[in-house]
Amino acid sequence: MSRGVFISFEGGEGCGKSTQSLLLKAALEKEGHRVLLTREPGGTWLGEQVRKLIKDQSDDVPCARAETLLFLAARAQLVEKVIAPALDEGVWVITDRFIDSTIAYQGYGRGLDIAQLHRANEFACSSLKPDVTLLLDVEPKEAVSRRISREQKQHSSADRIEREGELFHSRLREGFAALAAEEPERFRVIDANGAVEEVQEKIWTSLKHLV
Amino acid sequence: MSRGVFISFEGGEGCGKSTQSLLLKAALEKEGHRVLLTREPGGTWLGEQVRKLIKDQSDDVPCARAETLLFLAARAQLVEKVIAPALDEGVWVITDRFIDSTIAYQGYGRGLDIAQLHRANEFACSSLKPDVTLLLDVEPKEAVSRRISREQKQHSSADRIEREGELFHSRLREGFAALAAEEPERFRVIDANGAVEEVQEKIWTSLKHLV
Repeated sequence: MSRGVFISFEGGEGCGKSTQSLLLKAALEKEGHRVLLTREPGGTWLGEQVRKLIKDQSDDVPCARAETLLFLAARAQLVEKVIAPALDEGVWVITDRFIDSTIAYQGYGRGLDIAQLHRANEFACSSLKPDVTLLLDVEPKEAVSRRISREQKQHSSADRIEREGELFHSRLREGFAALAAEEPERFRVIDANGAVEEVQEKIWTSLKHLV
Repeated sequence: MSRGVFISFEGGEGCGKSTQSLLLKAALEKEGHRVLLTREPGGTWLGEQVRKLIKDQSDDVPCARAETLLFLAARAQLVEKVIAPALDEGVWVITDRFIDSTIAYQGYGRGLDIAQLHRANEFACSSLKPDVTLLLDVEPKEAVSRRISREQKQHSSADRIEREGELFHSRLREGFAALAAEEPERFRVIDANGAVEEVQEKIWTSLKHLV
């Protein structure tokens, strides 16, 4: 039995990762693959507890380093308990965020040392990397309008990280672009400004050689 | 105003750290110092939540890497929000466990890579180190008998880490000894097999030059 393929979705808030990861899962299953979809932080009981500690925490907001280490703890558990065993069993794994979000958010966004973050990622994941990383790139204006429309539909409100200012989000985008340029063999940069179906089509084309 | 002195207590289970750190706090206050006593994981709201996730967790036991990263998240928050500001204000800080416990427990005890753990500690603490580390060394037999006596007194039971086997605890002791040998200028190794008052006297003697 061959090993599963490991695909991560990356991008800023409102880039459409959640929608596209669900659509990709369905498309891969239609091709006969077994597929596991997971999200960060989360995907394990421990990860969900960590998610609660990070999101909307007003009692004792985690400092940038604590926030990073909490995300990494959730990732370590997810890799060891879920992702690595699934790949070994031939299951394809799609994850909504992975190592690159740490570099973009905590490195480019919050200004922590990028080399230290790369090493921390390696420690957390025992050096596991995605086979393919789909970076969904959207114009900042489009991202904001999607977020507002989602909040209105779901009667939800933005969490602590989503509420960060424009400068933070433009640094994020710059960070993701830099990461994609460093590892062109792993990254597929997808223009995600268009309609859901258009973006879905671009993703499918970029993965065709693997399916 | 001069900066406070930063003292950590280290050692295996049942070595008497908690008792001795309380006694040291009282003795330093008698000399006119302002003293803050804190413990790991904990000392902040976030740290106490992390403590709950680590200790006695049976739903989803953290893997060794996740456990390490959770401890480091609590430490990062404690350093940034509590320890560093207190030292800047001239307060002496005593902590019950710090960076060396990570190397001993997760490195020597659980077999994770020691160089990676040192780097992760540096990231979590922005390279802050204690001025003095008091390593309380007890014979394994003495440690076990103290733990049992405490459990009987407090009607409490050992947590997940305390219940680890004898081999784990002997690797811990070896780890702490190796760390002390690497940094003799920071470490004071205290024979902690005797009565509380004897150990207290030895600690005080080892710190006299600072007080």
